[in-house]
Amino acid sequence: MPIANPTPRTIVKRRAQRGVYDHAVILRILDEALVCHVGFVVDGEPFVLPTAYARIGDHLYLHGSASSRMLRTGKGGAGVCVTVTLLDGLVLARSAFHHSMNYRSVVLLGVAAEVVDPGEKRAALRALVEHVAPGRYASVRPPTDDEITRTLVLRLPIDEGSAKVRSGPPIDDEDDYARPVWAGVIPLELRSGAPVPDPRLDPGCATARWAAAYARG
Amino acid sequence: MPIANPTPRTIVKRRAQRGVYDHAVILRILDEALVCHVGFVVDGEPFVLPTAYARIGDHLYLHGSASSRMLRTGKGGAGVCVTVTLLDGLVLARSAFHHSMNYRSVVLLGVAAEVVDPGEKRAALRALVEHVAPGRYASVRPPTDDEITRTLVLRLPIDEGSAKVRSGPPIDDEDDYARPVWAGVIPLELRSGAPVPDPRLDPGCATARWAAAYARG
Repeated sequence: MPIANPTPRTIVKRRAQRGVYDHAVILRILDEALVCHVGFVVDGEPFVLPTAYARIGDHLYLHGSASSRMLRTGKGGAGVCVTVTLLDGLVLARSAFHHSMNYRSVVLLGVAAEVVDPGEKRAALRALVEHVAPGRYASVRPPTDDEITRTLVLRLPIDEGSAKVRSGPPIDDEDDYARPVWAGVIPLELRSGAPVPDPRLDPGCATARWAAAYARG
Repeated sequence: MPIANPTPRTIVKRRAQRGVYDHAVILRILDEALVCHVGFVVDGEPFVLPTAYARIGDHLYLHGSASSRMLRTGKGGAGVCVTVTLLDGLVLARSAFHHSMNYRSVVLLGVAAEVVDPGEKRAALRALVEHVAPGRYASVRPPTDDEITRTLVLRLPIDEGSAKVRSGPPIDDEDDYARPVWAGVIPLELRSGAPVPDPRLDPGCATARWAAAYARG
């Protein structure tokens, strides 16, 4: 079911006005970011690990080694939390208290399931490459059956979650606006640099145009 | 105690060769990043929220509203996991399987304590501004006693954790190097754009030079 309303677990409590429960907004944030942070519980203690991910429709896919503790915990039916954060700027106010950041984040909750169908598994691995580099999958060697077997893929439905978004200038206390200090936003963006060819790249193989022009968002 | 060895909880299990247990490396990653992801457990379920942080010596400080569930859970003596990730590049291999990312991440584990000493609390709030904008604290209005009271500050010792670092080109299977596809790294970096003055900024107040030249790392 698409996300349209907060649940008791996903309602944004702090700065509630920044909460967004719009499925399309949530998908856009998931599509722009490259890394998620996966939370899981082992022996009652929280662990958070960064990892790549991909989306197909209303499902998020995680992958890794079949021996990954994070994935083994996830496939066992335990709850996971997947959080994605895009940092958009530093918000510099006139008081220390009102300093903030502009950001777009998504928190997804749910129970993941191991993907066992080979076709779905292959589609997820394709989506993982395409998420990072759209159009690239067709030109690289696809996974062998052995690589597919060695890879654990988890599927998490995108049906319980929320986004939180802050944008715009600092909000200072009225009395502070007269202070003679620069205030505003320093925009931040993840940007790509010039591609670095693999030292073993065949010299006849030119830099792909898309690599030289790589951008997110 | 400075981090010098892995514990059973912090040893890097997947891609063990990427594990780093060097206190100085861990501090450098913490100092460069702007946002951490805090994992905590509520009713047995994991939650992961992004938040700002600061470091003073061998302690990490988190802050927020006194009613924040994350901070209230953290101050109650429950374990927390604080993860920081710097994404350095996309690693484009000749096979789908060997695609990867270059990154530097830190996972800290421990039990946080509420900071109640007003002096330490003020120092932590100063560090939170200085972490984002070094030198700025002196020019903004410092927190009032009321603002200090309304802010909950947690302190986490940096004494159990590990870093994980990947850098360099793709590592392909020997048979794949002959494939006629571009392979290499697209470097990624969080970069700042031109500062956006607050619409209410006094026109006589020029953009601070540091804001125009803002950079991390």
